[in-house]
Amino acid sequence: MANTEDLARAVGTGDRRALARAITLVESTRAADRQAAELLLTHLLALAGSALRIGISGAPGVGKSTFIEALGAAITDAGLTLAVLAVDPSSTRSGGSILGDKTRMEQLARNPRAFVRPSPSGAMLGGVARRTREAILLVEAAGFDIVLVETVGVGQSDTAVSEMVDMFVLLVAPGGGDDLQGIKRGVMELADAVIVTKADGDLKPAAARAASDFQAALHVMRPKYPGITAGVTQVSALTGENIAACWQDLQRFLHQLQAGGHREALRRGQGLRWFRSEIQALLGEAIASDPAIARELAQLEEGVARGDALPYTTARRLISRFLSLDGREAPP
Amino acid sequence: MANTEDLARAVGTGDRRALARAITLVESTRAADRQAAELLLTHLLALAGSALRIGISGAPGVGKSTFIEALGAAITDAGLTLAVLAVDPSSTRSGGSILGDKTRMEQLARNPRAFVRPSPSGAMLGGVARRTREAILLVEAAGFDIVLVETVGVGQSDTAVSEMVDMFVLLVAPGGGDDLQGIKRGVMELADAVIVTKADGDLKPAAARAASDFQAALHVMRPKYPGITAGVTQVSALTGENIAACWQDLQRFLHQLQAGGHREALRRGQGLRWFRSEIQALLGEAIASDPAIARELAQLEEGVARGDALPYTTARRLISRFLSLDGREAPP
Repeated sequence: MANTEDLARAVGTGDRRALARAITLVESTRAADRQAAELLLTHLLALAGSALRIGISGAPGVGKSTFIEALGAAITDAGLTLAVLAVDPSSTRSGGSILGDKTRMEQLARNPRAFVRPSPSGAMLGGVARRTREAILLVEAAGFDIVLVETVGVGQSDTAVSEMVDMFVLLVAPGGGDDLQGIKRGVMELADAVIVTKADGDLKPAAARAASDFQAALHVMRPKYPGITAGVTQVSALTGENIAACWQDLQRFLHQLQAGGHREALRRGQGLRWFRSEIQALLGEAIASDPAIARELAQLEEGVARGDALPYTTARRLISRFLSLDGREAPP
Repeated sequence: MANTEDLARAVGTGDRRALARAITLVESTRAADRQAAELLLTHLLALAGSALRIGISGAPGVGKSTFIEALGAAITDAGLTLAVLAVDPSSTRSGGSILGDKTRMEQLARNPRAFVRPSPSGAMLGGVARRTREAILLVEAAGFDIVLVETVGVGQSDTAVSEMVDMFVLLVAPGGGDDLQGIKRGVMELADAVIVTKADGDLKPAAARAASDFQAALHVMRPKYPGITAGVTQVSALTGENIAACWQDLQRFLHQLQAGGHREALRRGQGLRWFRSEIQALLGEAIASDPAIARELAQLEEGVARGDALPYTTARRLISRFLSLDGREAPP
């Protein structure tokens, strides 16, 4: 455990290799590593929390990594340090990790003010989300000013990312007519800002149309925070147009959030919801690790799905059995 | 219990007074009533499930009850029977129940083919949602063809209603400019159809603008079911314009849903999610009913919200204590 304390100290001084090792530790699923990871996080918790946390989502092909390279350059040119993390439940180390490809974000990866970390492997979103949340604490303890959390928006990963950041940014590409219907339902409600990429050359008119459609979509929805909006911006990572202005917009939004006390309230709520979801996940794991109850649960689920069993009544019987079974197995 | 069997038989024959008594039973929070309610539902489950279930949401002032009166008349004129239930977590029997006011839906309340039931009292959404879901099963067992579930969309009630119906309809009123920003975030994603009310007289141009804005908003989102959309309709309950056409649209959507196998998949998913949420709610109740654990939970939540405690680690310790405490208290 002395080792863990040394590692915590090194992370706290901003040592990159220590930070990379620390993130590997929180990503590990080995029980001994998990114990060390929790000790490490406990040591570093007081140093965390001060970065601006920005989530960036967008479907494959919208030009997300090109945009993050350009935005990242604007951020580090302003003298700030930047960490880029990724949530991609579909990735594996061997397969299509969104940041795993070494050719992506080449400039940021070489930038001394930036730290780029691929998505942890493992297909379960719950695990990936937990490890990314812990990785955010680690990069903050290492002193980074800005954390970008990238996601491809597979399944519920948009919601998971929106629950760990101060601001959620949706990237969309210009698309003609019906192509626009590509935004997954539920994502618009999360978006604090929409950024239309590739607003250059032939695509400029299509980008303007997309911006106007998304403006209309935001228009019918109540703003998340009264008086604070970031709206819709058109950018070109190719020509660099609007990238600096876009970073100014994001900063203004984040500073208004902080000044209005919204950020503190947001983070309190996120912390509580994370805690409650971990409680639910752990109770779910306890049920799954009891073979008799887990087997029964699977059968009951089939009956409920068919409409042959009443959800409330069935759940009540299962849970009273689970809690008393647990009692019978405990030592007297 | 013979009483409960008699009640089940009477509900199954479509007896209105029996149905009203049965709903009162599932709404009761008394333990003995709850036991009888579960027995009643078990008897009637096989008769339930055949109605078309439609959720109708809209902020106060959009003209929801006027629209439901008009739509209800179109439905019963077509020879179908209709039950109207309400989910309103803000209501109490004494206060502002959305259907409690006797002057509302006067025509439907007198219509022999319709059955109108106010929202159950009690402020907790979880309880209201459970009782409404069970009330849906009861009106189906009583033979109603169509169930409308009305909500004012307070808090999470839109999501709760969308989880108990086949189709979710959002009512909006014509509003100029900024007034449009009144739709709660997250509601658009639930909407299978948007209906603009009050499209008559002076409001006609504003209704057309609202319809076009909502069309644009739907346009940027992926449809829930490929090839099946109900889109945006403008109606006037005052002149009756488009009410019959609107009912045709809703029916076409529901029939396409059924023909494509989507409805069966939807209901399976809803049943499973209902079951899982009841399991979570019951585990939460078990924690809350253990005074030592509940006290500790409240303290831990404060630390987590402040950012002084790690959510995962804190949850893990609490749950292992909860499950073994349960063990220690059980008989040897």
